[in-house]
Formats: sequence, structure tokens, C-alpha cells
Amino acid sequence: MAKAISYAAHDPKSPLAPFSFERREVGNTDVQIEILFCGVCHSDLHQVRDEWANSTFPLVPGHEIVGRVTQVGSNVKHFKVGDLAGVGCMVDSCGTCPDCAEGLEQYCNHSVFTYNSPDKHMPGQATYGGYSNQIVVDERFTLKISDKLDLAATAPLLCAGITTYSPLRHWKVGPGQKVGIVGLGGLGHMGVKFAKAFGAHTVLFTTSANKVEDAKRLGADEVVISKDSEQMQQHLQSFDFILNTVAAPHNLDQFMALLKRDGSMCLVGVPDSPHPSPNIANLIFKRRQLAGSLIGGIRETQEMLDFCAEHNITSDVELIAIQDINTAFDRMLKSDVKYRFVIDIASLKQAA
Amino acid sequence: MAKAISYAAHDPKSPLAPFSFERREVGNTDVQIEILFCGVCHSDLHQVRDEWANSTFPLVPGHEIVGRVTQVGSNVKHFKVGDLAGVGCMVDSCGTCPDCAEGLEQYCNHSVFTYNSPDKHMPGQATYGGYSNQIVVDERFTLKISDKLDLAATAPLLCAGITTYSPLRHWKVGPGQKVGIVGLGGLGHMGVKFAKAFGAHTVLFTTSANKVEDAKRLGADEVVISKDSEQMQQHLQSFDFILNTVAAPHNLDQFMALLKRDGSMCLVGVPDSPHPSPNIANLIFKRRQLAGSLIGGIRETQEMLDFCAEHNITSDVELIAIQDINTAFDRMLKSDVKYRFVIDIASLKQAA
Repeated sequence: MAKAISYAAHDPKSPLAPFSFERREVGNTDVQIEILFCGVCHSDLHQVRDEWANSTFPLVPGHEIVGRVTQVGSNVKHFKVGDLAGVGCMVDSCGTCPDCAEGLEQYCNHSVFTYNSPDKHMPGQATYGGYSNQIVVDERFTLKISDKLDLAATAPLLCAGITTYSPLRHWKVGPGQKVGIVGLGGLGHMGVKFAKAFGAHTVLFTTSANKVEDAKRLGADEVVISKDSEQMQQHLQSFDFILNTVAAPHNLDQFMALLKRDGSMCLVGVPDSPHPSPNIANLIFKRRQLAGSLIGGIRETQEMLDFCAEHNITSDVELIAIQDINTAFDRMLKSDVKYRFVIDIASLKQAA
Repeated sequence: MAKAISYAAHDPKSPLAPFSFERREVGNTDVQIEILFCGVCHSDLHQVRDEWANSTFPLVPGHEIVGRVTQVGSNVKHFKVGDLAGVGCMVDSCGTCPDCAEGLEQYCNHSVFTYNSPDKHMPGQATYGGYSNQIVVDERFTLKISDKLDLAATAPLLCAGITTYSPLRHWKVGPGQKVGIVGLGGLGHMGVKFAKAFGAHTVLFTTSANKVEDAKRLGADEVVISKDSEQMQQHLQSFDFILNTVAAPHNLDQFMALLKRDGSMCLVGVPDSPHPSPNIANLIFKRRQLAGSLIGGIRETQEMLDFCAEHNITSDVELIAIQDINTAFDRMLKSDVKYRFVIDIASLKQAA
């Protein structure tokens, strides 16, 4: 076993603080990764503050992990020491259910999340995430990372990237389609980049007039201020697909009404309290669908990373030292980040 | 123009009463039908009582119409005098939009409903429905009715039939699938018959323990009492598709949780007040979809009627005289009908 250093939440109220623990021995099929960068996801904050009422402490967050392989087990086939590697939201699943068989491990009833899940290898302990200097992961859940992209800006692809890429692919977004992205945050800005890269006419919906220029820079063909009902009216029944990245409770009907017949709106955020109940007439009178989607499977995550390397797509990030994580959480709550904080894990090692 | 006799609502509060009016002249592409039977749909009652706040009076309800052709226009190609014919929920649409081009006239923004829509041919007048002795309809909206089936029991196919057939076909229900039908009323009992005929393992959900035997007689492989959470638990994550025919506000989550990953629940009833807001986690964590569907297009309605003739499928009906329509409405509100009232229009002529 190897000692790991990290920042952890020790209870739901206190700031994150340094924490040391043991990672498991590198097993036959395991890859040990020296973590270089870790993205900061909104779900980190939810779980740090136990807002989903399922947190176990100490809690080491982080599931947008990139780094370099430092050791591999004897049966590891696809990674060698020195490779770049990534870890996303999951580190294990049952491997035998229909979801796993189809490469959709995120829907497996027994998937193990990268942090805050019971750790099969360390009985009685939770899995610990990427706000840490190293991690040991089965190679089935380890992603190959291209050296063509900026490494820090690649980290958020492991959650924000795949969470938007997967539904856009599943609903077959492409040329000739008009596609909406609701919200310009960590997820939304990746949604804009992917929808545009897939060839769709991409429309960004935001409540903030001051995001218009930036949305266009990121690739939006049009930007609609969703509070402006006149602007919204002009887009009635015109969208093939809408990816809604806003988790805060809001009126879904105003977006459903913009879908064509047979159009779908996919939600990727679970609100803390329910959205206003959607108007069912909006579904019935145009055979529309309200759907949800969860991150993406490992095979699709690799496909997304390869697509990003080929098309030079990364996240827009602000690099922080781990000592600034608590301030970053506060700024994230105010949407004061363009568009993802990424922790430079070197700062953790310097502090140790 | 020809004088028609009917029963009409003259205001939202009074019982239906006799009413005479003029039908338009039979145009070049029109079919005149002597109405023999007309089904009684819940939406008749909603509109008679102006519960959708869009009724114009006098209002002649009825959109489950079967009868015999008595006259055809000079350009009519597919009908001749003496043929059996049917009319469903629509009598016209724009004919040029993408929905019409795909034979999905029910989604056309300019579809004309069989009653309570502005009548293009009779300026200032609403369309009048099938609680009447005759109707004049463009042949594009006239359906062929087989003489193999009981004619009274065929009438409800024009709305209750197609409203359930269309989503079951659209979501490709068939052998090897487990399909749920929620509610055993006019729509639900047709849903059970179709899902079974399509080869699916068909499960009927009802709140009424006394409907179990009848649901099985109608074709259900299993019946689940939806109030019994233990029974519901046994079906978690097991359904490919659920057709929900219940318009009354109710908890959708209990059914969404029964869908497999990628499963859909389709609603066909608009509730008078909203359903409790659905739990979005149920959508996200299994990529499920909540959808709606509206009746069906003309081409598909003909396909459904032909399917019914081939497979000997009709509605279970209770035949009534038109003089009993107000009592029938009251009984319908108490779900005291197995499973559709059909008016014997001969009673109207005898009264006249």
C-alpha cells in the first residue's frame, strides 16, 4: 500500500483540509496514476456539503482526473509506465449486467463511483477521489489521454465533457439539425462545443445577457436570452433536440414548447427541489419527450477523448492551487468561473 | 344543404338536448355519411362542460363515428354509396406542413377537429360531431370500415383505438417486450388488446382489485394493483414501455421506476391539474423518457382499422339510446362503463 495525500471534507460544514490515507496495492489488472490535474465539478460541492444526504466522511472529492502512469499490474495490457491516463466518475461496475455488456456501466445498478462509494478493495472505507496525489484504478476504468491537448484543460472532459457528449450522440445530433443548449456553465460550455463540432445549428439559452459574446466565441450560432419571452416565441416548434444543463429548479415548459414534433429535451442535472410540474399537453400535442442522461460509459468516454484530440476540443479552465479550493467552491456557487476550475495537483505536493 | 338532427350542449351547465342544423353541400371531394353509431369519449364530456375553456355552443360532440355512405362528390375516388365509413377526431388539416406530409395530420398546427373547431366550410359556425344523423367529410379524412366486425363496437376504434394503437406502434412494441398499460377504461382496455395482439408480455396496472379478472379476460398476462407498493417493487426496472391512459393527476414516479434503462412512458391524457412534478433522477439514472402522444394520423388510423378487422379486435361497448346520454356522462364520471358507451343513432331518428 502507498500513502496518498489529499484534501478532504471531514464533515459537511468545515472547509476542505489536508488528509492522508492509504491507496490499495496495485493489483494484477490495476494502473497506478500520479495525478497531475483534477477538475472541480458541482457534484463535488454537493457531496462535500452532504446535500444529497449520502456522504461518508472523510470525503476526498474529484472525478475529473488526469495524470501519468507510475505502475501497472502484471496483467495490464493497455497501459505502461509513463503513459498519460485519466479517470472519470466510475472506477468499477458489476461487469455482467446488460448495461455493462453494452458498455453503459454508468447505468449498472452496482457501479462504483470514483469517490464516496463503498470501496470493494478497502473494506469499511469509501472510495477516495482525485483531490489527491495518486490513485489506483482497474485498467477497465482507466482512459487513454492524448498528449496533443493541454492536460489541465482535458481533465473536465472526464465528467463535464462526457455528460454532454453522450446525450448529444445518443440523440444523434448532427448537420441539418437545430440544437439548443440550456445554461452556459461547466457542462453547457462543453455542450456548445460538441453540438457545434457535430455540425448542428447550435443555440445557447442563457438568463445572462453578459454571456452572449462568450457563447458565440465558444461556437454558438445564436444566443437566446431565455427570460425574454419575445425571443423565445421566435423559436417555437423549431428545435430537434435540447440539452438542458441547468440543475436549478426552473420552468421546463418554455423549452419544451420550442421542440419540433418528436423532439426531445434531455436533462443532465438533478434539481435539489423539483422543477415546476411540466405541462403534459406540451408532450402530447407534439409527441415530445422529456428525458435524462447520466455521464457516459467507458467506451464512449474514450471515444469522446479521441474525438476531442482529433478536433482540438478542451474545456475552458481556470487553474487553481488546492489551497484555494474552498474559495473556488464559493465562487462556483456564484457561477464565477469560466468555465471549470481545475486543481493543479503540484500544489498539493508542494504543501506536503 | 341538408338538415341534420343531433343532440347538443347549449351551454356548459344544461343537459344535452335535441338540436337541428344544416350540414354543408356535398362538395367534389366530400363523402356524406348516414351515421349509425357514435362512441362517447371522455373528451366529449370535457368539452360539453367547457372544462378545457375552449368550447363554443351549441356544441354537438362525437368523434367516434361509423355509418354508411349516402352520397359522394364527383371527384371522390375511394368511396361509393352504400360503403361503410368512419370518421375520427379530425376532418381537415393544412395538407402541406411536414406533419401532414408524413401522414401525421394530428400534429398539424391547423388540423380541424370533428367538433368544436371553426368550420372552414360554414363561416362563423363550429364543426359539429357525431351525436347526429349525418355528416359530410372530405374523403381524405374518411376511413374505410370492414363489414367483418360488429359495427357498434368498431366506433370507439376511431379515437380510443387509434390513441392507444399509435404510441404502441411508434415505440415499436412487440414480442420479447414487457409492456405496461396504466388504467383500464375506454383507452386502457384497447391498449391491453393491442399490446397483447402485438405479441408483448402485457401488464395492466389498476387501482381497482375488482378489475383483475376482466383485465385478464381482455388479454393482460399480469395485473398489478398500483396501490400495492410490494407488487410494484417486484417490477422495478423491468418494463420496455408503459402506456399511461390515466388523465387524473397521479404520481408518475412509481411507474417511471418500473422502466428499464432507455424505457419510455407515454401519456395520452392531459390532466385537468398538473401531475405531481416527476422526479428527474428517475429519468437521468436510467436514461428514461417521459413522452406524450396524440390520437394518430389518417393513414395509421386506416392501418389500425385493417389490423382490427384482420385480428377481430373491437371495443367492449355498452349500447345506449341518445336519450340516455346525460345519464351515460354521469356514469362515465364514476368509471361505471365496460368500457365504452356507444350511441345507437337509430334512437335519434326515432325521436325526430
